[in-house]
Amino acid sequence: MTILVVGANGQIGRQFCQLAQDAAVPFRAMVRSTEQQAWFRERGMDSVLADLEGDLDHAFDGCDQVLFTAGSGPRTGPDKTLLIDLHGAMRVADLAKSKGLSRYIMVSALRADDPLRAPEKLRPYMAAKKAADDYLKNRGVPYVILKPGRLTDDPATGRVATSVKEAGDNVVSRANVAAALLYLVRTPSLVNREFALLDGTRTPEEALF
Amino acid sequence: MTILVVGANGQIGRQFCQLAQDAAVPFRAMVRSTEQQAWFRERGMDSVLADLEGDLDHAFDGCDQVLFTAGSGPRTGPDKTLLIDLHGAMRVADLAKSKGLSRYIMVSALRADDPLRAPEKLRPYMAAKKAADDYLKNRGVPYVILKPGRLTDDPATGRVATSVKEAGDNVVSRANVAAALLYLVRTPSLVNREFALLDGTRTPEEALF
Repeated sequence: MTILVVGANGQIGRQFCQLAQDAAVPFRAMVRSTEQQAWFRERGMDSVLADLEGDLDHAFDGCDQVLFTAGSGPRTGPDKTLLIDLHGAMRVADLAKSKGLSRYIMVSALRADDPLRAPEKLRPYMAAKKAADDYLKNRGVPYVILKPGRLTDDPATGRVATSVKEAGDNVVSRANVAAALLYLVRTPSLVNREFALLDGTRTPEEALF
Repeated sequence: MTILVVGANGQIGRQFCQLAQDAAVPFRAMVRSTEQQAWFRERGMDSVLADLEGDLDHAFDGCDQVLFTAGSGPRTGPDKTLLIDLHGAMRVADLAKSKGLSRYIMVSALRADDPLRAPEKLRPYMAAKKAADDYLKNRGVPYVILKPGRLTDDPATGRVATSVKEAGDNVVSRANVAAALLYLVRTPSLVNREFALLDGTRTPEEALF
């Protein structure tokens, strides 16, 4: 039941890998360069070199699920948003399908539902996330789509909410996202579901069902 | 049987509108500004002001089909590729579905099938087109997706091909694309089909069936 972590070197990716290692959840960290790989090797974590814009197929060997948390992020150029956040996610969905993976866990974004309601500078990014989510939902691969609000570096509280109304705000810490992802990975019965994710008052188990 | 022409002010859009007028095919040209609208008014063509990033719904009133030939084009910034070529196309697909349109005719691109095989600078654009095509195909709206090769300003020959192998080259004139679109609009029996389009030796009727 090894999960391939696409985007392992990102801020959420690294925190997820640390939690997974602590919980003895088998995973493989997919990274782009040997430089990025060092962080994982130092911690005795399994890792693989692969490229969302190039050779990718081999990264899936022996993996049963995939977690997509790669992101050029809203602050990189939109050419990379198209090639990584959108097309990279689509390539991973195609491979998840052809290799018969049991689940694709996608880190999306709260405003991906309706990009024109996002702040103007984030709209292109949200359009890419919306299209990537839709592509995944139509592949026939069991999925869970997690849609965090605005990410912060606040420490983990282990308490989340699944709507802005419930949360009273639109923020969520990366640490809480990583913890929620670990819960999702360990809960294979959750399939074909979407959840918004914000800082809140419930445990992942209480909130994500 | 009026067709809404989204992106009417583009190079293919204008040529299509001229052909449609000559053939007495009812259409409405959707444009972004009164400045753009002048060209259509001067020719006695029906037109409507609407915005792929804003108010759009009203443009569909009285229309039965939609032709999407809007494109920020590969030479604009990729933020506009995300907002127009991708998200604009998705919004039109959602409206085509909710309004029960009989067909969505999409102008896509030859290399949208496999963006990483396109020249590097075109890859983000092709990723957007691939995602837009996939979104359309999963909406449940009858569609035709036309995938022209590299566009030229050569004069119309009225002769096309539907593969690079058949054509012997990867180019197609905008004039031939416009003529093929007119043929598609007038052939409502063609649904849920995709065609590559290159300059060639067959009439649209011989090639697109």
